[in-house]
Amino acid sequence: MILYDYYRSSAAYRVRIALELKGLSVEHRPVHLLRAGGEQSLPAYLAKNPQALVPALELDNGVMLTQSLAIIDYLESLHPSPALIPRDPVLAAKSRAVAFAIACDIHPLINLRVGNFLADELKVAPDSIESWRKHWILEGLQAVEKLVEPSPFCFSAEPTLADVCLVPQLFSARRFAAPLDHLPRLLAIEAACLELAAFQRAHPAQQADAE
Amino acid sequence: MILYDYYRSSAAYRVRIALELKGLSVEHRPVHLLRAGGEQSLPAYLAKNPQALVPALELDNGVMLTQSLAIIDYLESLHPSPALIPRDPVLAAKSRAVAFAIACDIHPLINLRVGNFLADELKVAPDSIESWRKHWILEGLQAVEKLVEPSPFCFSAEPTLADVCLVPQLFSARRFAAPLDHLPRLLAIEAACLELAAFQRAHPAQQADAE
Repeated sequence: MILYDYYRSSAAYRVRIALELKGLSVEHRPVHLLRAGGEQSLPAYLAKNPQALVPALELDNGVMLTQSLAIIDYLESLHPSPALIPRDPVLAAKSRAVAFAIACDIHPLINLRVGNFLADELKVAPDSIESWRKHWILEGLQAVEKLVEPSPFCFSAEPTLADVCLVPQLFSARRFAAPLDHLPRLLAIEAACLELAAFQRAHPAQQADAE
Repeated sequence: MILYDYYRSSAAYRVRIALELKGLSVEHRPVHLLRAGGEQSLPAYLAKNPQALVPALELDNGVMLTQSLAIIDYLESLHPSPALIPRDPVLAAKSRAVAFAIACDIHPLINLRVGNFLADELKVAPDSIESWRKHWILEGLQAVEKLVEPSPFCFSAEPTLADVCLVPQLFSARRFAAPLDHLPRLLAIEAACLELAAFQRAHPAQQADAE
């Protein structure tokens, strides 16, 4: 399998964590989101993923899977152990809800293409784009702080999909200088995750394309 | 079960479709997103859902589930027939990918709270907010047009999670006057869905709180 990846993409980072937790190895093929006007918009990549986003997973038979959370569910169904979705339906729903609170309601609002559109098309000033990013990061994470049930991971004694999404979002929050000190439950969960080798190996700084 | 609902919310509309397809009945409790400065921000609702978003599903034992797609996965695990997630892992991943292309990469960018922030905090003019909405709707739906495999629903002879997300997104696209004529595959899928009683009954215009 080939993972179209970018070290700093928090969506790609989620998939890397899931792969590491499940002990699966893939070929990583970097798609540089800033170089050459964005390699994700080149025709060769668009033919693979019409959304022009990373990550995408190419299966050995050439089938392309897109969207980080769909890829993780696919990995979960083929390699169910260790489980990233709790067996209990209520805990599974809570874990997914935190994942979506991040993947739907924070990440898409602060990513590169949205920042570019605000700057280039709506002529929003850089400091206003910075407040925009901090607003959605903090509004989202403050809600997530209330939704989690640390034990010591988001919902159980093992990391689940919620943790897989939380750690990259906190990494991204720091990149955008969002203050996190008032989110002690999330910081404690993050610390528990970062003790695990899987989370360490998936970190952006550990990737071959890191700059 | 109680569904905290709003007739025009496309996320709530997804859950209504899933409930109807599965033949499940719930009490609908409307949360008016525009009245009283937004009923979703009143303390009584915030205690139920700290994200201040609809939908949310309150189980008979008082447990609150949030996030439309987490709620649908919960319903799927308790009431697996008819299945909204295909059994085949690749088809499941493709169906989920279309759901996420809509639920992550279109809907959160065009919803009420984002429009309010652009207008009130970033002082973006109304016509620019309109172009912003059309841009993300069209960029997203054009990619989805390439991802689907009409048969006649998005990926099979029965509606799946992708269809459950697509129909509300097309409803929302029309509200914002986004041109859809160049998306014949999506329009054909929508027409197939709207022939089903479940999709008809879940439609915003059929809700008790419709205005």
